[in-house]
Amino acid sequence: MEILSENRSFGGVQGVYRHASAATGGDMTFAVYLPPQAAHGRVPCLWYLSGLTCTHENAMTKGGFQEHAARHGMAVIFPDTSPRGPGVADDDAYDLGQGAGFYVNATRDPWAPHFRMWDYVTEELYALAAAEFPLDGRHGITGHSMGGHGALTIGLRNPDNYGSLSAFAPIANPTRSDWGRKQLSAYLGEDEAGWAMHDASILLEERGWKGDLLIDQGASDQFLDLLRPEALASAMARRRQPGVFRMQPGYDHSYYFISTFAGDHVRWHAERLGDL
Amino acid sequence: MEILSENRSFGGVQGVYRHASAATGGDMTFAVYLPPQAAHGRVPCLWYLSGLTCTHENAMTKGGFQEHAARHGMAVIFPDTSPRGPGVADDDAYDLGQGAGFYVNATRDPWAPHFRMWDYVTEELYALAAAEFPLDGRHGITGHSMGGHGALTIGLRNPDNYGSLSAFAPIANPTRSDWGRKQLSAYLGEDEAGWAMHDASILLEERGWKGDLLIDQGASDQFLDLLRPEALASAMARRRQPGVFRMQPGYDHSYYFISTFAGDHVRWHAERLGDL
Repeated sequence: MEILSENRSFGGVQGVYRHASAATGGDMTFAVYLPPQAAHGRVPCLWYLSGLTCTHENAMTKGGFQEHAARHGMAVIFPDTSPRGPGVADDDAYDLGQGAGFYVNATRDPWAPHFRMWDYVTEELYALAAAEFPLDGRHGITGHSMGGHGALTIGLRNPDNYGSLSAFAPIANPTRSDWGRKQLSAYLGEDEAGWAMHDASILLEERGWKGDLLIDQGASDQFLDLLRPEALASAMARRRQPGVFRMQPGYDHSYYFISTFAGDHVRWHAERLGDL
Repeated sequence: MEILSENRSFGGVQGVYRHASAATGGDMTFAVYLPPQAAHGRVPCLWYLSGLTCTHENAMTKGGFQEHAARHGMAVIFPDTSPRGPGVADDDAYDLGQGAGFYVNATRDPWAPHFRMWDYVTEELYALAAAEFPLDGRHGITGHSMGGHGALTIGLRNPDNYGSLSAFAPIANPTRSDWGRKQLSAYLGEDEAGWAMHDASILLEERGWKGDLLIDQGASDQFLDLLRPEALASAMARRRQPGVFRMQPGYDHSYYFISTFAGDHVRWHAERLGDL
């Protein structure tokens, strides 16, 4: 693992690292914020999965998570959103290929050789982070938009690995949305039976979540038709799933929305991981 | 004045605006954060002047000021750092020309026609902001690096217009630094007598500041030799200037440093403007 940069931030360290990834067959870059408490012992961590077109960097620089993570003594891990590089397949569209991995293991060409973000996040980087950073084994997971989809699907299917779960404006029902059907068919093939494992609304209604959920959604989000929050809200209610679904008036899909509620989410995870 | 964007942020609005500037002879872009309190009445404002290579956008997206401004009910104004555009003189160096106005009124060609950032910030945008936004007439001023230089020189020379003053890692003594001598000679000419009006350490020792000052400087700043914080600290002490000069261990020159202490600065200004 190579250190690309480390900056002091709120008494801790915001680092950016690169490593050779077996899951994606190439170098991957990710960011980790370690709070001041990590200098003296192991800390819980929050995974933040990013949205379409983002790298590890967007939320790291614009999300404002460091202040809250320092206050609560949590690490924050910011993975990239896809494999990248000249040998990696891509598409001219912003919502397919590099920057748009959708947190699945692709089974179809040209994506299958590298686009294995499910394994990368849930297994490879999970193990690497535990080995390289002073983490105490408590993990929460959140994310925004495509990353909210990733956080919810990963959390719901791996409840033993994550103790707390939330999302910002997640792609909530990709099997019914143009942010989903196009990508799931490209990555996984036309058989829709396999898509359900990557649809948060379907998973939530079928499996539920062991704890309570926090979902924030901007009421003025310019992508509401693609995100389909109504599917997730409805699934929560039908499942009688404990949790909070907040429709935030005036907020859009931007990092101004994320940073506004970042503190609420970090505190939410910190409080719940305390009881893991 | 044209609205380029407005995003809900911490209950207020982060806006970006463009206007035709008489001072700089071209269109200028700036950002204003209005806290929730501005929906119901007039609020004080904090000017944040940015550093070399920055536009209005860097601190707006990476500084984390909105949360603190919302808490204290302050507006924050983020001006650009220079005139810009195809008809505006420039230089290949990052530290001269566009993105590097140094908050002076240039008197030498090719800079004189547009590079009038002193007048732009202290007069034109000051008046425009008062006319267009619900400000109550209380102004504080701060900034980073070149913008810290701008904030200190502007504040020290216009104490009637600003009620509070602070800086992050300011270019503290430009008449003695390669971040200053090169630019002051280009913009103002070789006669160094005129440069002193743009040197915070000289101005502070000669004039003092009516209130107390807050200066934050990273002890691991990669530009310490160019910033010359020792000149400012020394001037503060010789002048018996009330204030706080903090050498922050481990912090560098980046926005991670700025965002870490942004809350302290906003609170500092809010408390002092309350007594204006």
